[in-house]
Amino acid sequence: MTSTVDGGGPGREAGEPGGTAGWRTGDGFHTMWRELAPVGRHAGSGGYRRFAWTGPDTECRAWFREQALARGLAYEVDRNGNQWAWLGGPPPADAAPEQRAVVTGSHLDSVPDGGAFDGPLGVVSALAALDALRERGAVPRRPIAVANFTDEEGARFGVACAGSRLTAGQLEPERARALTDADGTTLARAMERAGQDPDAIGPDPRRLAGIAAFVELHIEQGRALDPMGSPVGAASAIWPHGRWRFDFRGRADHAGTTALADRHDPMLTYATTVLAARKKARQAGALATFGKIAVEPGGVNAIASLVRGWLDSRAPDEETLAALVAAVEQAARERAARDGTTVDVVRESATPRVEFAAGLRDEVAALAGTAAPAHPGRPVPVLPTGAGHDAGILAAAVPTAMLFVRNPTGVSHSPAEHAGEDDCAAGVAALTDVLEGLACR
Amino acid sequence: MTSTVDGGGPGREAGEPGGTAGWRTGDGFHTMWRELAPVGRHAGSGGYRRFAWTGPDTECRAWFREQALARGLAYEVDRNGNQWAWLGGPPPADAAPEQRAVVTGSHLDSVPDGGAFDGPLGVVSALAALDALRERGAVPRRPIAVANFTDEEGARFGVACAGSRLTAGQLEPERARALTDADGTTLARAMERAGQDPDAIGPDPRRLAGIAAFVELHIEQGRALDPMGSPVGAASAIWPHGRWRFDFRGRADHAGTTALADRHDPMLTYATTVLAARKKARQAGALATFGKIAVEPGGVNAIASLVRGWLDSRAPDEETLAALVAAVEQAARERAARDGTTVDVVRESATPRVEFAAGLRDEVAALAGTAAPAHPGRPVPVLPTGAGHDAGILAAAVPTAMLFVRNPTGVSHSPAEHAGEDDCAAGVAALTDVLEGLACR
Repeated sequence: MTSTVDGGGPGREAGEPGGTAGWRTGDGFHTMWRELAPVGRHAGSGGYRRFAWTGPDTECRAWFREQALARGLAYEVDRNGNQWAWLGGPPPADAAPEQRAVVTGSHLDSVPDGGAFDGPLGVVSALAALDALRERGAVPRRPIAVANFTDEEGARFGVACAGSRLTAGQLEPERARALTDADGTTLARAMERAGQDPDAIGPDPRRLAGIAAFVELHIEQGRALDPMGSPVGAASAIWPHGRWRFDFRGRADHAGTTALADRHDPMLTYATTVLAARKKARQAGALATFGKIAVEPGGVNAIASLVRGWLDSRAPDEETLAALVAAVEQAARERAARDGTTVDVVRESATPRVEFAAGLRDEVAALAGTAAPAHPGRPVPVLPTGAGHDAGILAAAVPTAMLFVRNPTGVSHSPAEHAGEDDCAAGVAALTDVLEGLACR
Repeated sequence: MTSTVDGGGPGREAGEPGGTAGWRTGDGFHTMWRELAPVGRHAGSGGYRRFAWTGPDTECRAWFREQALARGLAYEVDRNGNQWAWLGGPPPADAAPEQRAVVTGSHLDSVPDGGAFDGPLGVVSALAALDALRERGAVPRRPIAVANFTDEEGARFGVACAGSRLTAGQLEPERARALTDADGTTLARAMERAGQDPDAIGPDPRRLAGIAAFVELHIEQGRALDPMGSPVGAASAIWPHGRWRFDFRGRADHAGTTALADRHDPMLTYATTVLAARKKARQAGALATFGKIAVEPGGVNAIASLVRGWLDSRAPDEETLAALVAAVEQAARERAARDGTTVDVVRESATPRVEFAAGLRDEVAALAGTAAPAHPGRPVPVLPTGAGHDAGILAAAVPTAMLFVRNPTGVSHSPAEHAGEDDCAAGVAALTDVLEGLACR
């Protein structure tokens, strides 16, 4: 296969290479990609359903362990369930600066019906880059690790980046254990069932103190690199973002007999709020989305008693984001007064704006451009993103950088998400140069 | 207990009798009500989840069978899974007019988180009326049956009144077998698991030919009887109604990175359609409700690829209903063009206007008023309804009438649905008088 890396979604354009000629991913990359491709893939949608601590997630984790062991890397699972594969490590406790590790990796879980690349591309590219370093005969002067952070998407328990948040002390262990999925299963119970001790979770500052740099490679989400003609970019910042749960409550009633004037129908309040969110986001130059909803009782012939809608919102700065969410809430309340319904808004998560460390960012952008075919030696483009990542969480504790691999359509969180074969190869080459520059010189 | 029959919902007003003094339901009624009360009741919502061919439904059916056997009635299950309990029957094949049966009854299944009365009140009152007839020493000159029609609400497989529709030849057996629930289980498989042969389902004209009259007692849905000061009414007609599935399709994408202008977000199209349905129903003097929705992929940080919303709509006549649904569809298409989404509309069910037979209707209204405390001997009020019923289906094949028991709040399809103790007793007394008048004279 030399055309595209198979993301397998219905929107994939077979036989359409991404661009820059000359790059090819190695056999190791292809073998890994092929092994992961069927895990947790839904036959109907073609998308992935790899939710934290479920069967498909466990399969992905077993695969990661095998990859570590097959390479002779030291394998460990940390207190929060994140997986680590060490070349020459882990570093000693209280490591001196020159003993600290360079860590790369990403996550293997997915959103509901997600694509093949969001997460796995970073893990597979990290392992392929380690292989490439060895082939070059590069000698690491620091430990290098590949990490698989658990529950990055938050698809099951509602909190994104749970694994890295716990490690960085940004998620209370007590709160984490009590998180529940749609079936009422707690995170604690789910971890237990998967053989992980939920009582052990919590901050891991000594682990973070042993890390000199964390570099996460990820498929681009959005479509900024394509017009720049670059297969790889580096991240400057992550927009502040958050999730708000809107509970619209009314009164269940028979849809066939209750006069319109007698109704307290929260679906009307919800609909108005969806449209207001879009309008106010446009006015603010920001993003707002309702993509998940739960309705009770949920019968065709029953007026809803509860409509629960989740707002995902992001903006270039925190003031804009706060003003946007307040405006959406205000619109919801105004309509609720008219509908005879109520609105409760709960902030489920909030992540402040992340500026990646300028020094590491520039070094990574320069190293990633070392062998770029179009402009060798010139740094890759540096761009912001609206998507949250484990790198954004860890940036508060560790010098952190990100590499993006071009997404020609910009489509992500969808079975149609894909990256070209050549661009994936360019990503591995760039990451290899970054690891060599940071860990072997 | 002499105050209210316990519907148990959170909205129930304890200690508030329905009105007309002097009526009391008998011990038999109370015992039956108490036995059914816990079956399929959800601890959290207080509402009922008795979906066709599930565990709670099977429990209700077992209870019905026990009631029949305890009274020495001839018990049978027809080819479509409807249950029958016969006093002096069933009638012979090709029964002469004077040998034909009088049938009463209703259903025991529920909408999601429905109330205790919608369905069970008709079955329990029917059995209580049989007991009362016997106590009076009335001698039936025709067979009398109590029926429990299966899957009236259509909560699980999407087609309301499936049991009576099959019997009346208004639902193709092939189509019925292929209906699926939310988990992808077909009706055929669900029936099989419950021990009912799905290959046997289909029209049952000989059974219907043996019925002289079907009278269904039901809690009022809506609030027309209360201002009239009457605990019981009779039905004149059922508004035409139907269910339409609107599939809004767009493109799944990352909510945090996809520019608003690049989106194809079907949630926006859905929201606009919900508001348009309400507005156009108001203009038409009709009803339109979106109370059930399914979203794919359904992640907080994923723009929806599919929003599926179900429209329930009803109007006084069929022309108004058709025009209303066409107007809602038109509004959806206009917005879809703006959102870059598509709309497909599938009519899942449609029931024409039902006029109950005038002769039987007047006879039932007169008999039901025989012993009414306020105006003894005067017919009970006659009123139309927007709710569908098995009686509405059977009316096409059999002389059919309905009795309604006053609903003081009008709330239905909700845990808060309730009827007063006295009104339930009045319903049993009225039904007893109707059965005596139709079957014993």
